[in-house]
Amino acid sequence: MASERVSALLTDLYQINMMQAYLDHSETKTAVFEFFVRSLPARRGFLVAAGLEQVLDYLENLRFSAAEIEWLSSTGRFGRNLLDYLAEFRFTGDVHAMPEGTVFFADEPILRVTAPLPEAQLVESRLINILHFQSLVAAKAARVMLAAPGKLIVDFGMRRAHGAEAGLLAARASYIAGFAGTATVLAGQDFGIPLYGTMAHSFIEAFVDETAAFTAFARSRPQNVVLLLDTYDTEAAAHKVVALAPRLKAAGIAIRGVRLDSGDLIALSRRVRNILDAGGLAEVTIFASGGLDEDALAAMTRANAPIDGLGVGTALTTSSDVPTLDCGYKLQEYAGLARRKRSLNKATWPGRKQVWRRYGADGSMAGDILALEGYQKAGTPLIEQVMQAGRRLQPPPSLDDTRRRAKHDLELLPSPLRRLDPGMTYRVEVADELKALAAEVDRRTQEKTAPPLDSAATAR
Amino acid sequence: MASERVSALLTDLYQINMMQAYLDHSETKTAVFEFFVRSLPARRGFLVAAGLEQVLDYLENLRFSAAEIEWLSSTGRFGRNLLDYLAEFRFTGDVHAMPEGTVFFADEPILRVTAPLPEAQLVESRLINILHFQSLVAAKAARVMLAAPGKLIVDFGMRRAHGAEAGLLAARASYIAGFAGTATVLAGQDFGIPLYGTMAHSFIEAFVDETAAFTAFARSRPQNVVLLLDTYDTEAAAHKVVALAPRLKAAGIAIRGVRLDSGDLIALSRRVRNILDAGGLAEVTIFASGGLDEDALAAMTRANAPIDGLGVGTALTTSSDVPTLDCGYKLQEYAGLARRKRSLNKATWPGRKQVWRRYGADGSMAGDILALEGYQKAGTPLIEQVMQAGRRLQPPPSLDDTRRRAKHDLELLPSPLRRLDPGMTYRVEVADELKALAAEVDRRTQEKTAPPLDSAATAR
Repeated sequence: MASERVSALLTDLYQINMMQAYLDHSETKTAVFEFFVRSLPARRGFLVAAGLEQVLDYLENLRFSAAEIEWLSSTGRFGRNLLDYLAEFRFTGDVHAMPEGTVFFADEPILRVTAPLPEAQLVESRLINILHFQSLVAAKAARVMLAAPGKLIVDFGMRRAHGAEAGLLAARASYIAGFAGTATVLAGQDFGIPLYGTMAHSFIEAFVDETAAFTAFARSRPQNVVLLLDTYDTEAAAHKVVALAPRLKAAGIAIRGVRLDSGDLIALSRRVRNILDAGGLAEVTIFASGGLDEDALAAMTRANAPIDGLGVGTALTTSSDVPTLDCGYKLQEYAGLARRKRSLNKATWPGRKQVWRRYGADGSMAGDILALEGYQKAGTPLIEQVMQAGRRLQPPPSLDDTRRRAKHDLELLPSPLRRLDPGMTYRVEVADELKALAAEVDRRTQEKTAPPLDSAATAR
Repeated sequence: MASERVSALLTDLYQINMMQAYLDHSETKTAVFEFFVRSLPARRGFLVAAGLEQVLDYLENLRFSAAEIEWLSSTGRFGRNLLDYLAEFRFTGDVHAMPEGTVFFADEPILRVTAPLPEAQLVESRLINILHFQSLVAAKAARVMLAAPGKLIVDFGMRRAHGAEAGLLAARASYIAGFAGTATVLAGQDFGIPLYGTMAHSFIEAFVDETAAFTAFARSRPQNVVLLLDTYDTEAAAHKVVALAPRLKAAGIAIRGVRLDSGDLIALSRRVRNILDAGGLAEVTIFASGGLDEDALAAMTRANAPIDGLGVGTALTTSSDVPTLDCGYKLQEYAGLARRKRSLNKATWPGRKQVWRRYGADGSMAGDILALEGYQKAGTPLIEQVMQAGRRLQPPPSLDDTRRRAKHDLELLPSPLRRLDPGMTYRVEVADELKALAAEVDRRTQEKTAPPLDSAATAR
C-alpha cells in the first residue's frame, strides 16, 4: 500500500545476487540508470508520467528490518559482508525526473537514478513496478478524458484491479489525468481524492421492491440520492423515480441522479431522460457505468447521449487493451564511462540525458530532442533534479498541482494525438552528440567482446 | 501486501453508503453472496481457483482502526450509529468455497459468503479484488505449464505486475499452477516459494568485459553460476563461457547454466547448445527469457529447442492477453428468500449453490452440475465450508498441497481443453430445481417491479 511500508524484499533475487558480487569485487562506483519506455504500444500516441512520488517515498524509506536480514541469512545464499551492508542500507543517491503529469514519448527517460552501483541496482525492480503501472493507467485515463470532454468521470475499478496497491494507485493515476474522483475510499484518506458512490444491485434486491429501496436510501443519504435503475427493468424503475420524487421532496429530499449499469446505455439514457423530463425531473442527472472504456465513451459523445457522468472501472485500472508497456531501467553510465547493451531490439541510448520540448506558434507541442545532459537545445528541458543524497529537494507537490500540469500538457498535445487512434507519431529527435556517444560506446565494447581466438577456432 | 494488514478502507464508497442505509432500516438479516465468473474469456477453456487464503486472512483480520473511524467521521458523510458499528466491526459470517487449485468454469461459484447483510456487503470489493486477480494469473500460469511440458518455469514478472501486491500474489498463483518458483524475494519469505535469479545486463556492462563479469559472478555465487549471454553478442559470449570454464573448474567452480534474453531464442539456443557441447560443456543448461508467453513456449516445444528452463514475466503477471475476468459477487439470498438481478446479460442463478463434478472411465472430467445446496447429484461436490462465525475451520493447507491439487485437476482436464486454443466448451449443466427457483424469483420480483400505474400513464 502506498500508505504503508513495502518490504525491502520486494525485489528480484538477481539484484541481491549482483549486490553480493559488486561488494566482493568493489564495484561500488557511481552508476547512472534511466527508466524509459522503448516503444509506444498500439493506440497510444503519448504517455503520462506518474508514480514519481511513490518512487521517492520508497527510496527515502528503504530499509531492511532485522527480521528480513535474518531471513536472508537463513537462506544460506549470502555472505556476511552483504548482510552487514544490507542491515545498514540507506539509499544515498540522486534522482532526476520529469514531474508527474508530464506527457512523454518513446525513448525519453522519465527518471534517472545516480547512485553507488549496488544501491542503484537493488531498487530497479520496485522502481519499474511503480512507474510502469501508474504511467500506464495515467495514459489510459487521459484517453478516457479525451473521449468524453466535459463529462464527470469517476474511477470505479478497484475491485478488478490487480491487487490492493493497483486499486489504490489507479485512483491516483486517473485523478492526475483528469478524473473527477474515485469510488475507492482509501484513496480519499491517503490522497484526498474526491469520493463517489451510491448503491449496488444487492441493495435494491434486499428490499421488498425498488421503491422501498430507493426510499430507504434517500432517507439515509439525503445529500447524495443517486438511484440505480437497472436491477430489474430500467424504464420501469425510472417511472418509479418519477412517482417517488414528490414524496421525497415533501420530506425535503431532492433526487440528484440516477445510474444505468447495463443494456444499451445510449438508447436507455434517452428513454430515461424523456421519462425524467416528462415527470418534472429535468434537474436529475444520468450517470452511466458497466464495462465502459474510451471507445464506449467516444460512441456516447458522438451520439450526444444525455449522460452527465460516467464510471469507468476495469478497463481503466487494468488498462485492459494495453496492460503493459515495453519499458526498462537501464545502466547508461558507470564509473564515469557511458554504457549500453546492444541486445537485439533492446539497445539503449547511453549517458545521462535531458529531453527538450519545443512548442509551435499556436502553443502546441512541436517536437522533442533527446540530448546528452549539459548540451543546450531549443525549447524547454523537462527533466529536473528531485532528490539529492537520498533526500527530496522539495516537499511533494499537491496532487491538484500535478493534475493541473497534466491538464496543461494534454491541452498542448498536437490534435492528431488527441484522437483515440493517433493520427501521427510525435517527433523525438536524437541529438548528434548522443548518436556519437552511442557509436563510441559500441566501438569500446566491441573491441572487448570479440570471441576469444582459441574458443572460436575450436568451436566454429 | 499479503504479509501486512490492508486497510479496511480499501473498499468502495457505495459499500459504506449502503451499510448506513442497512443499519438505519434494520436490514441486517442473513445475506448470501457468491463469487463466480460469468463467462470464460477468449482462449480460456477453464480457470483455476486461487486467492481463498488471502480472502480468509482478510475476513479474520478486518478491523477499522481508531484513525480510520476518525477519518470517516471527518468526512461528515456518516451517522454516529454507523461509525459506532464500524468501530466494533468483526466479520462474523460463514464461508464456503472450492479449495484453491480447483479447476472451475463459467457460472460456478468458487466462494460463498453467508453473513449479516452489512458485513457481507462491505467485503465485496476486496474479495473480488483478491479472487479475480489470483484466479486470473493461476489460469494463465496453467496455460504456460501446458505449453512447455517438463520444463522448469519461473516467474520473472514482478517488475511489470500492477503494483506490489500483484507482483507478490502472481508469484503465489503461478506456483500453485505448477511454476518451479519465482524471482520475487518477498514471495520466498512470505510463502516459502523457491527463488531463482542470476544477473542482469547491467552487471555485465559494469565490468571491463564479459569474461571479467562472468568470473566475478562465479567467484561470488559459486553454487549458482548461470551466465547471461546476450548483452552484446550471444554466440561470442558462449565462446567466452567455453574458454572460461576450465579456469573456473580449476578453482572448483562449475558453470550451471547460461541465459538467453533476446533475439530468436529457438535459433540461438541451438547455436549456443552446439558451442557449449563442442566446448565440453554438455552439462551446462540453457535458460531462456525475454517477453515470453505460452505461445512462444509452445513454439519452442514444437521446435524441440534445446532449452531447459524458462522465465516468464510480464505476460504471466498481467495475464496480458486477457487481463480481466467478467466476474461478480452477487446477492443470491436475503432473509431466507432467494434473490437475483435480471439486468441484461447479467442475470445470475439465485440461491445457495453446490457444484458436482463427474469423471469419465479414463478418470478425466466429464461434466459438472450447478445445483442448489441440499440436492444430491452424481459426482463429487466441490464446495466445502471453510469458515464459521468468522473463524477458519482448518489451518491453511500448505502451498505444496494446493499445488498438488492443481496438478491433479489439470491432469484430469479433457484433452481438448489442454490446448492453448481450447477445442471444446466444458459442459456445466444447470439443475432443474435451480431453473425452477430462478423462475420463481423472477415471478416474485416482476410482480413488485411493474411500473406504477400513475407514472406510466403520464409519461408513456
